[in-house]
Amino acid sequence: MSIFLNPPIEAMTAYTPGEQPRDKAYIKLNTNENPYPPAPSVIAAMNAAEIEDLRLYSDPTAKVLKEKLAALYGLKPENIYVGNGSDEVLYFLFLAYGQRGAAFPDISYGFYSVFADFCGIEATVIPLESDFTIDSQKYHGLNRFIVIANPNAPTGLSISLGDIEGILRTNPDAVVAIDEAYVDFGGESAYPLMAKYENLIVVRTFSKSRSMAGARLGYALGPAALIADLEKIKYATNPYNVNRLTMRLGEATVDAEPYYQAKCAAIIRTREETAKALKALGFEVLPSRTNFLFAKSDKIGGGELYRKLKDRGILVRHFSNPRICDYVRITVGTDEQMAACLDAIRAILEESL
Amino acid sequence: MSIFLNPPIEAMTAYTPGEQPRDKAYIKLNTNENPYPPAPSVIAAMNAAEIEDLRLYSDPTAKVLKEKLAALYGLKPENIYVGNGSDEVLYFLFLAYGQRGAAFPDISYGFYSVFADFCGIEATVIPLESDFTIDSQKYHGLNRFIVIANPNAPTGLSISLGDIEGILRTNPDAVVAIDEAYVDFGGESAYPLMAKYENLIVVRTFSKSRSMAGARLGYALGPAALIADLEKIKYATNPYNVNRLTMRLGEATVDAEPYYQAKCAAIIRTREETAKALKALGFEVLPSRTNFLFAKSDKIGGGELYRKLKDRGILVRHFSNPRICDYVRITVGTDEQMAACLDAIRAILEESL
Repeated sequence: MSIFLNPPIEAMTAYTPGEQPRDKAYIKLNTNENPYPPAPSVIAAMNAAEIEDLRLYSDPTAKVLKEKLAALYGLKPENIYVGNGSDEVLYFLFLAYGQRGAAFPDISYGFYSVFADFCGIEATVIPLESDFTIDSQKYHGLNRFIVIANPNAPTGLSISLGDIEGILRTNPDAVVAIDEAYVDFGGESAYPLMAKYENLIVVRTFSKSRSMAGARLGYALGPAALIADLEKIKYATNPYNVNRLTMRLGEATVDAEPYYQAKCAAIIRTREETAKALKALGFEVLPSRTNFLFAKSDKIGGGELYRKLKDRGILVRHFSNPRICDYVRITVGTDEQMAACLDAIRAILEESL
Repeated sequence: MSIFLNPPIEAMTAYTPGEQPRDKAYIKLNTNENPYPPAPSVIAAMNAAEIEDLRLYSDPTAKVLKEKLAALYGLKPENIYVGNGSDEVLYFLFLAYGQRGAAFPDISYGFYSVFADFCGIEATVIPLESDFTIDSQKYHGLNRFIVIANPNAPTGLSISLGDIEGILRTNPDAVVAIDEAYVDFGGESAYPLMAKYENLIVVRTFSKSRSMAGARLGYALGPAALIADLEKIKYATNPYNVNRLTMRLGEATVDAEPYYQAKCAAIIRTREETAKALKALGFEVLPSRTNFLFAKSDKIGGGELYRKLKDRGILVRHFSNPRICDYVRITVGTDEQMAACLDAIRAILEESL
């Protein structure tokens, strides 16, 4: 950091992404990436003509992609904002709606508190219950920006649409964002509630269920007035926020919906089999509606298991927060990857006996 | 805009990008895009394996691209920041260093005043001289963040490294950003001054001379402490800001340096021939060090010329600012595109007689 840096930025702590070590070839189960590649039709969409056209700016209105997403959800293009990953969408939401503070769970996507800090927003951090569920009553009538990941990370648990509706109804003067990064793995989307609540915005990403973490494409579904707010922030910071290739691949991805539905179903099957195997090894496994499992063993600590798996070439994620430091978060990969992970866990547990 | 939006954002005016009409096929000379495609080796760098890998996150450290750029400039990787277009880099600079205000010319990249507004920064707007040159003395001792486009847009004029050094020397407590979006078309880069001044940051883009406006790739060259500031803001807002494909294409672009040097030389040749032809038609043409020409005729107003060219399928850019409303800014395209543009101008001038 330099002597010139704006002091509040100097003072805050930034986000730490999941590690991407390059010292050997790991089985990467630490950042909730999809084990399956994009659909063949998406791969075929990228050709020399698309690369040649890179000399031209991308379409800042994202017209075609918005039309395709609108058709997919039965919405209008003005109900859709397209961003450079859902991180950008979430950052813009804090900028747009955080002026009276922001509320979110203590254990959730770690970036929420970073956004609040960076934007100089007072954060109301609401502890999850002892079983890691969200008591939606604690969000009633807060009268400030609320963001809830549903399903939540790293717990994998979901809350009901009824609970979300209660939060929307009791916070009519504040925007409520539902971060649905993992919804396609068994969650229930809140977007139909848009018809009743003008303070709802739903955040989505192509990173997980659409196998495009590396393409950086996120979006929001919401009432036209909220989408216009996000567009304004985009045009005040980075109008060409989504590049041409990502835009084109996003369009092709929406067209390949059945492929991704099938891959989500495969991941759910693998998840359930892996959860069963972990339980058989004595793990406590939270009921996941996502593409990861949050699990702990009374035979080995979370930090130790993480380190020993890494030694064996398998990366999972461990969090130092004391409430969850006994757990590891394991991304659901292919059946083969999960078999390798389970074999490694079995061997580690046997070593510790 | 919604009733929920943060009032300062509601009150400000966002940026208006150059128009991208789709009603017919225009010769597009309005947004300073490169008329030549990326190098064949860059186009070949994009293959099915790269698209398959999109399921994985991009490298937030941009390790390979930073190493290649460092080698190109004789710098170290820690002297290089990589961003989602130079717009993102510039926005981050206003966030990082604008706390005591920001100074920039009245006629320059229109986004500077938008960034200042959006960040709640007091703007000191310094008028260009009557001949559109920058009097560098007016930037001495301002003790606030300074940003100067060199060469400047839309004028195309450049200032000397001696003038820049005077600004750096007399503002030791403030960061001075030199926006070199157009430097490869005949300007002189300020980055060697980094060795002497720890308050210098140079902003670059792949959008113009590297034929990748649609890929969204910008970067900054600066002392390691300033680069660390930008990295911190990235990790506080959007760590995976550059997608995998753009990163890979950027790497291939640095490897294809001779191709781009040759295309820049071709654009400079076309520019000089076009300037000569415009002067022969009675235009006043500013001496351009960029890939555009800023020109006016006493036979036709800038707004009228813009509209009549658009009617004939040729897009140029016109600005409503009274100081420059007599001018049009014409991007330098291929020889064929410029011949068509000159033919259209000749016909329009004859019509007006």
